[in-house]
Amino acid sequence: MPVVTLGIAGGTGSGKTTVARAIVDKIGRERVAYLEQDSYYRDLSHLPIEERRQVNFDHPDAFDNALLCEHVRALQAGQAVECPVYSYTDSARLPETRRIEPRQLILVEGILVLENSQLRDLFKVKIFVDADDDIRLLRRLRRDTQVRGRSVEHVLGQYEATVRPMHLAFVSPSKRHADVVIPRGGSNVVAIDMVADALNRRLMDRPESS
Amino acid sequence: MPVVTLGIAGGTGSGKTTVARAIVDKIGRERVAYLEQDSYYRDLSHLPIEERRQVNFDHPDAFDNALLCEHVRALQAGQAVECPVYSYTDSARLPETRRIEPRQLILVEGILVLENSQLRDLFKVKIFVDADDDIRLLRRLRRDTQVRGRSVEHVLGQYEATVRPMHLAFVSPSKRHADVVIPRGGSNVVAIDMVADALNRRLMDRPESS
Repeated sequence: MPVVTLGIAGGTGSGKTTVARAIVDKIGRERVAYLEQDSYYRDLSHLPIEERRQVNFDHPDAFDNALLCEHVRALQAGQAVECPVYSYTDSARLPETRRIEPRQLILVEGILVLENSQLRDLFKVKIFVDADDDIRLLRRLRRDTQVRGRSVEHVLGQYEATVRPMHLAFVSPSKRHADVVIPRGGSNVVAIDMVADALNRRLMDRPESS
Repeated sequence: MPVVTLGIAGGTGSGKTTVARAIVDKIGRERVAYLEQDSYYRDLSHLPIEERRQVNFDHPDAFDNALLCEHVRALQAGQAVECPVYSYTDSARLPETRRIEPRQLILVEGILVLENSQLRDLFKVKIFVDADDDIRLLRRLRRDTQVRGRSVEHVLGQYEATVRPMHLAFVSPSKRHADVVIPRGGSNVVAIDMVADALNRRLMDRPESS
């Protein structure tokens, strides 16, 4: 039944989540199966808490992409999936899961969804949301201090230690695989409208069930 | 009558012409008024031939953007325009012109169509076609030696002297104004389909005449 699988990548603070949500609003929530790569962080409950703190969460290996791929394939085959629910405080999966039903549009969003080739090959359309590096840092700093209650120095230290190096090593190079690059993230109404119009047209063109 | 004005920019060898033509094919030739910025090179017939050779044809000032803007506005108002026909050998406008009728889609294509703010403001959708710099040089070298019969050293010398510096100074920075960036130029079928689908939808949504 689902017809189009869309991957949306981009660095921290690029506006990829805003773009993804705007597309969902335009396509209609009831027609979209929305998967966040962040839900697929590896379960680290077997490690002592101190070791979990040492893990580089911006590296591709931090994600259980095999499970994410399995879930995308299941949704493509018309089956519902049980999406993991991840606890950032414990770096572990919670016992509960979130059921996601198959829909016409499967949208997979996350910093590294275009980095993994198995995942990438499942996407019909690959989008990279881009923003200048200083603007991305500014947004992350604002969000993490204002919304998540972190200290400025904590955010900056983490940015220097892992976020920035992993962005340069893995996120930014994955832009090369994108079909379309959307600059100025969430405020780019023209691009969001264009992607949504094109998806709507594709979803309309095909039978709702097969 | 015309409803959407689209600007397509990109460096030499980026594949912008291939993208523009693919979009025309998908929209339907009879629905598109196609303007090339290259037709609007300034007439240099008042200068001696040796002086014409000294002109930097990759600089924004080489183009008569005021006339191009005037023509876009006329087409938007439903009036036909007389597009200049430019002779590269004489660096001059030929006596004849080419009549362009108003259409639903006005497509303006050229290396610097996103650089000029008056021109830019006339576009509803702004696209920048992107490709790696070495690939662009490779394509230009192949085209200019094989199709235009120029020597390798002529092409390389011109590339070093004006093409590359003007690309860095004016073409590449104009990418900042794009709504959508299309990587891998003409071979990027997914992006071309997406833009054409979105344009088709917009053109369909509105009355053919008003």
